[in-house]
This record gives sequence, C-alpha cells and structure tokens, in this order.
Amino acid sequence: MKKASIVSIGNELLSGQTVSTNASYLSERLLSIGIPVVSSYTIGDDTDAIVRAFNLASTDADVVLATGGLGPTDDDLTRSALAEFLDVELQLQDELLQKIQNFFTNRNLQMSAKNKIQAYIPAGAKALANPLGTAPGIMAEVNGKLLIALPGVPSEMERMFEESVLPELQRLAGGQAVVVRKLRCFGTGESNIAELLGPLMQRGSNPLINCTAKHGVITLTINAIAEDKDTARQMAEKDVKSLRDKLGELVYGTEEQTLAEVVGKKLSQQKKTIAVAESCTGGCLAKLLTDIPGASGYFTYGWVTYSNSAKTSELGVGADLIEKYGVVSEQVACAMAQGARKKARTGFAIGITGIAGPSGATEQKPVGLVYISVDSDNECETKRCLFSYDRAFIRLRAAQTALNMLRLKLDG
Amino acid sequence: MKKASIVSIGNELLSGQTVSTNASYLSERLLSIGIPVVSSYTIGDDTDAIVRAFNLASTDADVVLATGGLGPTDDDLTRSALAEFLDVELQLQDELLQKIQNFFTNRNLQMSAKNKIQAYIPAGAKALANPLGTAPGIMAEVNGKLLIALPGVPSEMERMFEESVLPELQRLAGGQAVVVRKLRCFGTGESNIAELLGPLMQRGSNPLINCTAKHGVITLTINAIAEDKDTARQMAEKDVKSLRDKLGELVYGTEEQTLAEVVGKKLSQQKKTIAVAESCTGGCLAKLLTDIPGASGYFTYGWVTYSNSAKTSELGVGADLIEKYGVVSEQVACAMAQGARKKARTGFAIGITGIAGPSGATEQKPVGLVYISVDSDNECETKRCLFSYDRAFIRLRAAQTALNMLRLKLDG
Repeated sequence: MKKASIVSIGNELLSGQTVSTNASYLSERLLSIGIPVVSSYTIGDDTDAIVRAFNLASTDADVVLATGGLGPTDDDLTRSALAEFLDVELQLQDELLQKIQNFFTNRNLQMSAKNKIQAYIPAGAKALANPLGTAPGIMAEVNGKLLIALPGVPSEMERMFEESVLPELQRLAGGQAVVVRKLRCFGTGESNIAELLGPLMQRGSNPLINCTAKHGVITLTINAIAEDKDTARQMAEKDVKSLRDKLGELVYGTEEQTLAEVVGKKLSQQKKTIAVAESCTGGCLAKLLTDIPGASGYFTYGWVTYSNSAKTSELGVGADLIEKYGVVSEQVACAMAQGARKKARTGFAIGITGIAGPSGATEQKPVGLVYISVDSDNECETKRCLFSYDRAFIRLRAAQTALNMLRLKLDG
Repeated sequence: MKKASIVSIGNELLSGQTVSTNASYLSERLLSIGIPVVSSYTIGDDTDAIVRAFNLASTDADVVLATGGLGPTDDDLTRSALAEFLDVELQLQDELLQKIQNFFTNRNLQMSAKNKIQAYIPAGAKALANPLGTAPGIMAEVNGKLLIALPGVPSEMERMFEESVLPELQRLAGGQAVVVRKLRCFGTGESNIAELLGPLMQRGSNPLINCTAKHGVITLTINAIAEDKDTARQMAEKDVKSLRDKLGELVYGTEEQTLAEVVGKKLSQQKKTIAVAESCTGGCLAKLLTDIPGASGYFTYGWVTYSNSAKTSELGVGADLIEKYGVVSEQVACAMAQGARKKARTGFAIGITGIAGPSGATEQKPVGLVYISVDSDNECETKRCLFSYDRAFIRLRAAQTALNMLRLKLDG
C-alpha cells in the first residue's frame, strides 16, 4: 500500500493564528483513494526546517504533499528548499513567467517585480497550473518518491490538487479501493462503547475501526481496504452490521448525520410536529432544531422562558407549582412541556429546566442538574440528568439529550 | 529564548476527520508567554511513530507538548510510548486510581475495567490532575527537556494546560516579557481594517500586530516583547490606543470578549432588559445571550416564532401585515420586536426575520436577506442586511449583527 506524508509550511501555522485545514482536507482525499497519511509535519518559513521535513516525510512515505511557501515574498522558501532537497538549481521557466504576466494583464493589474520569483522551479521538476492565482505548484520525483508542493491558500490548493495531483495519485495507488463508513452514537461514554465492542476494535485490523468523541456524540469510523470497491464495501458493511447489533439503539445515525437531522427526518416521515420550552438551555435546543434546512416543516413554536414569570405568563406553569417544587424540578419541566404543546398544538413538546451555572446552585440542586420532559399524547416522560464540566457543555449536552429522548420516542 | 514543539497523536487526525485545534491553541498560548513553537508533528496511534516524534520534538525544542492518546482504549498509546522514550517502566499510581474511581462514583457510574490503565504513568514522571475527565496528564524531564502529555479532548486539555502547565512554563520562560493584547471589532471586513491601519500592520515590527477574522469578528492581536513586563505593557498599550483611534466604534471589546458579553455588561450597568423574537435565526440570538453567565439579570423572555401563526398568536403581529408586506419585511421585523417588548415589558426588544436558505428565496427576496429591528422607548430601528455563504453563516451573522446594533444603541 502506498503511503503519504504531509508538510505544512508557514510561520502563521505555528503562531496559532491560523488553524490549517489543508492537512485534514488532503488526508481525507488521500485516504479516499487508498493512500493513508502516516505523518504530518508543520514547520515555519525556514529553509533548513523545510529541507529536514522533506527528508523525514520522504522517509515515512511514498508521496510527500507540501503546502505553503510558494508566494512571491521573501518568506516564501518552499521553491528553494525543494531545490536544495533535490540537489538541483532553480531554473526560470519562460512559459510560467508568461502565465504569471497574463494573470496580471487579464486583471488590468501591474505585475510586481517580486512575482517573477514564482516562475522559477527546481530543474527537472514539473510545474502544476494554478487557475486561481499566481503561484504554480511543483511536482518532482526522486528515488522513487513523489514530491508535490502546492500553495497554502485553501481554494487554490484544493483546485490544483483535484485537477493536477489526484489523477496522478490514483494511477500510483493502483487498483486499491477504500470504503469509509461512519456510525454515530449517543447515550453513553467512549470507554463503555469500547467495552461493548471489545475485539472488534483491534488495532491494525482491516477494516480498521476508530472511535472518537465530541459533544457527547461517539463516532465509530470503519475503514475497509480491498482490491476492488465492491469487496471493500462488503467488508465495511459487514462490520457496520456487527457494530449495530452490539450497540442497538445507541446508534442514532450514519456518516455526517447530527441528532437534530435524524430527529427532523423522523418527525417529517411521521408527519409529527414539535415545540420547545427552554429555560437553562436558553435557545440551544431551538437552534439545533433549526440548524437543519426545512425545519419549518415540523418546528413552529419555541419559547425561551428564562424567568419564572415568563414560564407562568407564556406557558401557564403554575406559580404555586414553582413555589412548591422549585423551578428546577421534574414537575416544572413537565408543566413547561405540557404548556408548550397545548399552545403550539403540536404532537410533541420538550421542556427543559436546570442549572447551567456557574452560579445558581443550592445544596440539593447542584450545577449541572437538568430536568428534561418530552410531552406527547400518551404521557409526559421526564429525565433527571446531572451533567458536568462547564456552562457551555451542560447546555449543549442537555439540548442533545432532549433530542435523543425524542428520537427514542419517535422510534417507539 | 526557550522554544517549544508540539506532538499531536491520533489516527483521527491523519484521516482528515478531525481538524485539531489543540496545536493552534497551544501555539498561541505558548507564544503569549514568550515560548515560540518551532515545529509541530502529527502522527497516528502507533508506538514507534510516537517515540520517534518525541525524539524529533525534543531535538527541536526545550519543551515538548503532546496531546491525545491518553484515553482508556487499546489505541491510546501515549503513556507506553512516553515510558519507552524515557526508558522507564509504567507504574500504577494508587492515588490516581483512587481519583479515577471517585470520578465514576461521584457520577453514580460503574468504572470500566479499561479505565484502570489510566492510573499508570512512567516511573519518575509527575501526574497532572484532570478536573474534567479520567485521563490524567503526564509531566517528565529528561536531559534538560520538559515533556508534557495532555488529553486530546480540547476542553480537558485547555483546562489542564492553564492550571497545571502554564505556571511551570512561565517560570521556565524566565526574563523575557511578552504582553499580548487583543482588540475585537465588528461591522466591517478584514481587508478594510487592513487598509484603515496601513503601516501599523508592518511585518517584523515590535509590537507585532496580527489580524484574523472569524464569524464576522475581526481580532487584532498586539504582541509586544521587551526586557521587562512594564515596558512590554507600555508598548502594547500605545499600539492599542493608536488602533482604537483609527477604528472608533468598530472596536467592540478586548481580549476574549464576545459581542454578547459586552452587550450583557452594558445592559447590566444601565439596568436595562432585553427580549428577543426570532424567526430565521431560530434561537441563535437567545443562545448567544444566554451563553453568558448571569444573563438572567437582563434577559427573561425569548420567542422562536418560526411560523406565521406563531408570530401572530405569540407576538400579535397582524396577519394583514404579513399578507401585505410579506413575512420577510421591515414591517414584520419591527412588529415582532414591538410585540416582544410589550409582552415582556423590557427596555429593548429585537425582532429578526429573514431567509436562511437553502430554500425559501423568491426573485425579490434572495437567500441571506434578513431584517433586524431593535425596538426601544424612542423608536424601532430596522436594518436590512444581505448575508452570503451558507445557512449556518447567515444565521450566526444575523444574530451577531443584532447584538452589534444593540451595542451601538446602548452606547447612545
């Protein structure tokens, strides 16, 4: 199997001001054609560091993809570092110079003398056309390794990669096919999932199963590699089925699906509607629901009743109920959901009340305590949750948990 | 000057599924205390690769910061790789085990057997407390180099870095003083700011001024380096003043302040209250307002009136008004704000109606068209905006623009 290594060049990548998305873009595209990325180096605008990174990367892999450092200014050093690594001179390419001049002429701009440097590339290397800018890419071969340098501007880099680099790499990858599938889970932790899956998650196996967690969503990625696409797909599907069998209703969706998307789809299919009444989540749940295009088909009414009086005046939650049980209680969450459902005349309504912190806690009611109610024709189901971490985490987790309760309800 | 190198560990970082923000977070924080990052390595869950990265990073720099690979599953290999690099054994730390057990006990959860592995750390190394999770960090010294391993989950990593690592590194950075100041701007684009500032943004100068843009907020970072803190602070303050003079009311805040935070502070100080009535933003504005702890002091009522009937029944927006001008109109935005202010009895109210897309556009009303009204005692001020890009961008930009309108109103 051919492997790749990525070299990202630029001081701005090391100062923390810019989060480079080039490396992850290239990684995903390379993996999709069966060339996994095995290492990724980020260095500043320094010739020695770039040459060393080329050395390391070409030791790690068959293909080295570098981005950045091809601009016209003095701190753009990729051209000269690549020439040094290849042990050749930089040569002026008249044809390239003409192209760069045309780029400016076509835009009625004066070409800066600095731009001439972009027409130099290492002797023996091939220039790659840049339809969107002045910096050409460079492709060179040495000792059976393929080295490719592309500009750091994402739009230019992506276009050049797709047009000039990808076809070359597909030839290089040969017949090999990769199929990537994802399962999205909610309702338990990463270590519990790992325990449930046991030997399925063995390292170095094919398909390879990877587990990551973000905002309470556990993502299982299944990477299958085979001689042809059909075989790879069958291998991946087999694992998807095993994982689904083991995880049951913990799996809420596939690929890039969010909980809100899956819930929205189910509501649409079942021709049901939903209203929300939020206190501590303060609009997070409504936002998640309306992140999804077409949400107006099932979501019409939302309330952010942040004060007690808002709960009473807008949702009809009895002041005596709040007095008796406290505003953070099962009874108030349920009354909020019921009030919202009645007013909005929807099939379902969700009520959320809790303490997002950092203040507002009492001895009996700590920060992170949240009651979530889902009201429907049959019943008002309430869940008592205790989330930890900080305000943002508690609010998001509460909203996601509410969506998950609704999902399970919609599944019957 | 001390230098740092970063090692990011995890297969998911090489498959392109996760864009790691840890490296840029650490780079920025390290630079702010005068320890520039000179290289950054990303490798997969592979012991040999991790050991090699530790070797490279400790050759490059005085401080090595690694993230990821400290979880409880079999693909978490940072502990054992670090032990191999240090040439010592992993040792069970009873105290750590107790802490991890407590983490589960406090949450009424069963500890998985897998989690025990997290109580092992290399002999002679120091464990770093993780207040938010089960994975402790590790700090070790070898040959005058400081090695630090932190979890890959950003919230855990950041908290541990700030609490346990930063003080240690500040001591290490010694004499040189760095002062970093930030100005946050809203209401114009990055290139316009660059033009307004002109020679102030020269490269290589000290203080160095950097400009980045995210979600419509333009951040100017002023980095001043001097022999002592006072001098560096004076240098930074002088530039902050020049920038403020040039940018005027475009500057809404400093350091990590968000628009919602600044608006909330002004509302509190002026003892004013705010209610919101949202259509296309679907809760985004309420969420931004309630992201801020203590928002209940000035924010009490919010409506997400996603349907026409909700606007009429909840906010008293006339059906004839909607019929006559269309639901996406200055008149409806203003009526929503007025209705909300009347019902919530607040000093201010915001109404937002627009087309977030991708569907819903007409010839006269394109995707991205949003009307935002701020109603107060004196007037109902409405702004017609046309935002581009996608649904998420349009919604967030509309909510931020509403906050900015309110900020300018509160400033008189």
